[in-house]
Amino acid sequence: MSDAVPPLENHPVNTLLRYHLGWSDQEGNPSPTPASQGKALRPTLCMFACDALHGDPRLAAPAAASLELIHNFSLVHDDIQDRGYERRHQPTVWALWGTAPALVAGDAMQSLGDFTSISFEDSVPASTAIRVSGLLTESYLEMIEGQCRDLQFEQRETIGAEEYLDMIALKTGALIRSSLVIGATVATDDTDVIEGIARFGRAIGRLFQIRDDYLGIWGDDAITGKSTDSDIVQRKKSYPIVYAFQQATGTSRNELLRLYGQETLDESDVDQVMQILEDLGAARQTDSLTETTAQEGRSALATLELPPWATDDAENLIDFMAYRLF
Amino acid sequence: MSDAVPPLENHPVNTLLRYHLGWSDQEGNPSPTPASQGKALRPTLCMFACDALHGDPRLAAPAAASLELIHNFSLVHDDIQDRGYERRHQPTVWALWGTAPALVAGDAMQSLGDFTSISFEDSVPASTAIRVSGLLTESYLEMIEGQCRDLQFEQRETIGAEEYLDMIALKTGALIRSSLVIGATVATDDTDVIEGIARFGRAIGRLFQIRDDYLGIWGDDAITGKSTDSDIVQRKKSYPIVYAFQQATGTSRNELLRLYGQETLDESDVDQVMQILEDLGAARQTDSLTETTAQEGRSALATLELPPWATDDAENLIDFMAYRLF
Repeated sequence: MSDAVPPLENHPVNTLLRYHLGWSDQEGNPSPTPASQGKALRPTLCMFACDALHGDPRLAAPAAASLELIHNFSLVHDDIQDRGYERRHQPTVWALWGTAPALVAGDAMQSLGDFTSISFEDSVPASTAIRVSGLLTESYLEMIEGQCRDLQFEQRETIGAEEYLDMIALKTGALIRSSLVIGATVATDDTDVIEGIARFGRAIGRLFQIRDDYLGIWGDDAITGKSTDSDIVQRKKSYPIVYAFQQATGTSRNELLRLYGQETLDESDVDQVMQILEDLGAARQTDSLTETTAQEGRSALATLELPPWATDDAENLIDFMAYRLF
Repeated sequence: MSDAVPPLENHPVNTLLRYHLGWSDQEGNPSPTPASQGKALRPTLCMFACDALHGDPRLAAPAAASLELIHNFSLVHDDIQDRGYERRHQPTVWALWGTAPALVAGDAMQSLGDFTSISFEDSVPASTAIRVSGLLTESYLEMIEGQCRDLQFEQRETIGAEEYLDMIALKTGALIRSSLVIGATVATDDTDVIEGIARFGRAIGRLFQIRDDYLGIWGDDAITGKSTDSDIVQRKKSYPIVYAFQQATGTSRNELLRLYGQETLDESDVDQVMQILEDLGAARQTDSLTETTAQEGRSALATLELPPWATDDAENLIDFMAYRLF
């Protein structure tokens, strides 16, 4: 009995979690459309890696579910931290129910996610289940390390591009990498293969964040569902901004420092930041980093000798991550 | 490598967690005295149950550690929710470092706690490790259910004594019960024995909370380290208050409703509440519930046929839980 995931059906956090996942509205009625759901990137990567390495992808399903739960619980807590009112086109959990219920709902989801990572029943050896749980915990702690560094960055005037890339490798990259590594671990014990998958995963993680940073400034509102200059309005130190701070000298450096030293940025401030970014070639530099990273992903892939369909899918994934519009 | 608990040594949350556990001061220097540490009740119960059922108590150590981590992480988050400034005679984590760092530090501790619950390496079968993790998750979700009910109670004018006892059975009782059940699970597969331990654990859990409620009103400040009338000042609906609301009629009921309808209670309000409690025999009723519960614990114990030393210890534990002064 205790081998199964405990049921959450009548639990008071059930509606909050179903709502956050886009499965129901705030009264608990099933959602007619999945509009507010996420991309399910992590579970997809997990099951893909298992499949690509000749494992039955269904075997990776519990691990895939746990990755999605851990990712989503972290979003519930992120929204509390950032006082974010909207996520996936709908009000956030804390904004609707308050901080304390959102906090414990997130905690419940984490607990469920951790347990789900070992809930393979008899379909994989218990030792593999425990290895999967270790990988999940390890990458989750990396993710928190990234969040802590990010919080520290907020206190600082400038951040180096390398430091920024190290931070996102932890904050966003770790769970994306481990999604692939966990799927691979369900399929194989071959440590060389798993290391190749990890290299591929690191590239995918960086591509994902860098493209997010690009779209946060130059994306099309109507497609991303976010306000494109919101990253600038929020004074978010994303890659293009970090790069601009690093490259700017003289007047433009002083201007950037002045603009980012303000509490809020108005429309003309945003225009000024956009102009500085253009002068410094920040979009081009972001694209170039994307291309280098995509190349790293392709070269990791080349060592893996996956079946042709999987190589095709993985290459398409790299292209999607690098050039997606949403 | 991933079978071991990931090291947290250089992790940014390390100091926050060591501080919370009373192992270091806020700069990370080892504490000279363990004054700020908790009672370690849950790990003690876990290892005791294993030992009492003829298991090697060292085998239960990872599970015991995980129970203490889960309990402590929940305190870090509780303090954020309750805006509590002090815990174990020192400032709380969020009060020192802020909400966001305390939130993620708690999340890291939960992750570590969940993973520790299966980190037996080869000392117990992997299937037992997974069962332990399931029990931990199950009881943790019960604990959150209790927290949610408690939050709902805050919105309500009155609460029935039965509802209150159901709530604390979840909020405090579940993890205490599962501490014993988990220790037992490491030692034996006998479901009758485990059910007996669970009954004993339910009694211990209730005794613990009811005595806490008693001490929160009639305890000696110097011994408990808490201000004795603080539960009243904070308008906490603990058992004696819930009982008083249920028993009070006429003027004293109206007085209680008026007093608890205020934002804050001053010294004369507290005196008035204390007088109403005395008139209604709330202390006597609390003691009587304690005695009934202690009796339930003793009768569960009688079915277990533990070795004499363990029966003695368990009886002493009941007496300590029922009559402790701190």
